[in-house]
Amino acid sequence: MARRIDDSARLRSTGPLGDLSDFPDWFAEHARRAYTKVERVGLDELDGWVTDPATGDLRHHTGRFFTVHGVEVEHPGAPVPRWTQPIILQPEIGILGLLVSRIDGVLHALVQAKVEPGNANGLQVSPTVQATRSNYTRVHRGRAVPYVEHFLDAHRRPGVLADVRQSEQGSWFHRKRNRNMVVELPEPVEAREGHRWLTIGQIHELLGREDVVNMDMRTVLSCLPFTGPGTDADDDPDPFRRALRRSGDPAADSLHTMEEILGWITDRRAGEDLTVGRIPLDALTGWTRDKDRIRHDDGAFFDVIGVRVEAGGREVRHWYQPMIAPAGRGVIAFLVRRIEGVLHVLVHARVEPGFTDVVELGPTVQCVPESYAGLPDGSLPRFLDTVLDADPGAVRYDTVLSEEGGRFHRALNRYLVVEAPDGQDTASPAHRWVTLHQLSELLRHSHYVNVQARSLIACLHSLYHAG
Amino acid sequence: MARRIDDSARLRSTGPLGDLSDFPDWFAEHARRAYTKVERVGLDELDGWVTDPATGDLRHHTGRFFTVHGVEVEHPGAPVPRWTQPIILQPEIGILGLLVSRIDGVLHALVQAKVEPGNANGLQVSPTVQATRSNYTRVHRGRAVPYVEHFLDAHRRPGVLADVRQSEQGSWFHRKRNRNMVVELPEPVEAREGHRWLTIGQIHELLGREDVVNMDMRTVLSCLPFTGPGTDADDDPDPFRRALRRSGDPAADSLHTMEEILGWITDRRAGEDLTVGRIPLDALTGWTRDKDRIRHDDGAFFDVIGVRVEAGGREVRHWYQPMIAPAGRGVIAFLVRRIEGVLHVLVHARVEPGFTDVVELGPTVQCVPESYAGLPDGSLPRFLDTVLDADPGAVRYDTVLSEEGGRFHRALNRYLVVEAPDGQDTASPAHRWVTLHQLSELLRHSHYVNVQARSLIACLHSLYHAG
Repeated sequence: MARRIDDSARLRSTGPLGDLSDFPDWFAEHARRAYTKVERVGLDELDGWVTDPATGDLRHHTGRFFTVHGVEVEHPGAPVPRWTQPIILQPEIGILGLLVSRIDGVLHALVQAKVEPGNANGLQVSPTVQATRSNYTRVHRGRAVPYVEHFLDAHRRPGVLADVRQSEQGSWFHRKRNRNMVVELPEPVEAREGHRWLTIGQIHELLGREDVVNMDMRTVLSCLPFTGPGTDADDDPDPFRRALRRSGDPAADSLHTMEEILGWITDRRAGEDLTVGRIPLDALTGWTRDKDRIRHDDGAFFDVIGVRVEAGGREVRHWYQPMIAPAGRGVIAFLVRRIEGVLHVLVHARVEPGFTDVVELGPTVQCVPESYAGLPDGSLPRFLDTVLDADPGAVRYDTVLSEEGGRFHRALNRYLVVEAPDGQDTASPAHRWVTLHQLSELLRHSHYVNVQARSLIACLHSLYHAG
Repeated sequence: MARRIDDSARLRSTGPLGDLSDFPDWFAEHARRAYTKVERVGLDELDGWVTDPATGDLRHHTGRFFTVHGVEVEHPGAPVPRWTQPIILQPEIGILGLLVSRIDGVLHALVQAKVEPGNANGLQVSPTVQATRSNYTRVHRGRAVPYVEHFLDAHRRPGVLADVRQSEQGSWFHRKRNRNMVVELPEPVEAREGHRWLTIGQIHELLGREDVVNMDMRTVLSCLPFTGPGTDADDDPDPFRRALRRSGDPAADSLHTMEEILGWITDRRAGEDLTVGRIPLDALTGWTRDKDRIRHDDGAFFDVIGVRVEAGGREVRHWYQPMIAPAGRGVIAFLVRRIEGVLHVLVHARVEPGFTDVVELGPTVQCVPESYAGLPDGSLPRFLDTVLDADPGAVRYDTVLSEEGGRFHRALNRYLVVEAPDGQDTASPAHRWVTLHQLSELLRHSHYVNVQARSLIACLHSLYHAG
């Protein structure tokens, strides 16, 4: 078959963890050189942005970048069968690109220390290139995007390990997709200012630190074809890690065949009667715009706010933009279980209004518990209590990470990987146990795995190195 | 991997062609029992249908079935960068279901002799079940759909060989998808009136006859995992058929890897700046509604017409509906080429306004030549002349087939498979040579291969039996 076995085998030879002792200094040095100052401003004070007089939609005066408009969602049979909400329309497909290369036989990736206005902590570890189309076609009239030339027309050259459009937050974006690309170079290129070569093992270690590795890096990492447990997987003394490594093996036993998983996804997609229609932003019900923000009347979900950003680096720039500020901290978790010695993860066939194709596979649990305050008892998502009440020994990963800081203001979520208690009933029409190899097969295509699940997949891979 | 090798191996054992000598009598008998009488009526005389006073959209008074509305398409850089047109909105996902079973070791399928009002010839060979959701939930208040129980909740049972939503005509339908399903039964069920078990070989022979096998049957057949050339492929004395059989082999050499094909599709999809917006039907430009039809001012593309249908069978029913009547006969063709002894087909990354995801792989050529009359010289699609001027010995398949008769009135197209002349330059950013196995891998997923290409894939498979 078409899977590039050679590359996969190469990729897992990520070598020793490597020394990260100078990383904090490097990071702190860049935090001094590159920073953003973010100031809240009223929605009418967003220089360059206009409120459309006919619709109330917030858009840039050039018509570019993105627009905040409204949607009306009808989902008969769901706990909330009908609602309206603001949503971001950003039809341009950007590039999240990672350059990798083997240095002394060990796979390295060229990462970037990048500031984004929404980051709680300023700087984060990002992929080599993270650029909207406006960025790299220079609508900003800023500097050219370094290294972008390796990703334009990449499909004409050898070395492309992944190149697939993937969705982003379907509750906040209307059909947003970014192109997730990994390109392998025969020789590493020079790391320019703000960039640095790290081993995959080092990046995995950073994934265990709070809010260091950004969302774009996590989603690109999830699309790397990390298949194959290596010949030594059976020798691994740690039974969890052994099951994890076997989970990436194409030959490992899975509870369901790929045909069954695909048929189940078809069934969920064909069965959901979801209608999402664009409406004017000033036609929302249950949301109120005042001078500072657009806010849900219960204080739930998120606000649309305005900010003035000053970004410093080699040159100082400033701009204004709307952002989405979530109402609370989310819980994003995979339940996992060793089945016949192979780790399986419990995915949830989720409906989000901004998905291109109705349903994508998400984490077992993905919610902001605060947003359920106004809803009847029993509305909280299934398995949330299993995750939150888990025995500490069953929690394999538990780190606060943030969503994309270019559009979301301090969108921090708690990401967890939790072993399901023995004997717990997990039968559910909307959930299935799948292996990491099966997820990797789905990730070759668009619209199967949502961005939160992709983050968790990267976190799971990072546990290869834990222990 | 997840491909069900056992099933695939079984499926190709389609056995001898079988005797079709009594087929014409069986077919004629059913044509007497089941018929439609179709009468053109004015758009204002469509009983049960209303013209929305605010938009001019044509819709059923219940809001069900389908709606004809308008779209405005912007496609910068294309030969026609902006246009408006009527389009059918039918959000319900119907079922095209085929039951198969081995009888004396030979794979058979349960086909149906089905009448549709748009058929030029009345009766056609259809899959076991061909039902809109309105049909099988009995909005029509008609009889229950026979055999539909085998396809509802099929993913919970063994025997599902294919279950995938696929697009239909993206120039006439707005994001229409039907669920293509093949379910294998351990024992054949009894054929009820109008149904009959045929071998796959017999169906393939019927595919060579003019306008006998309907579109729904062709698309379901294309989703059957017909992989593997069989151990005797290399012994086949016919070099074309040998190359054809090798083309379905997962191990056969292909010009491009699957990763390269997927990367190319990502690149085409990310690069197309297509915007499709719904507009009122009475806001079209270049189209005129009179009492009989909605028509393009140049007489090009298609008309929207009204019909009164009387359908006879065990009971007589009648209804009214709008239909699309194409302006001319289309040419739908694959160029094929033997590359290193493996047949490759030249697919075209097409943009159609009704596609869910911008681009799907279509035939090498897909057009209605008459619709280019008003356009500048040089607008005709590439490779059309190669197909039409081909040496007769290079034409491997050439049969007139029709599109779906439930919505389209006498939509006949000429389907061709033509060997590309040696040495012809086929380099094109929008075309790629792929094997049948690669197409089969793509057909496990939605939105990769358009309905015309799927028909041609079924026609190509039928050439296994030619000779």
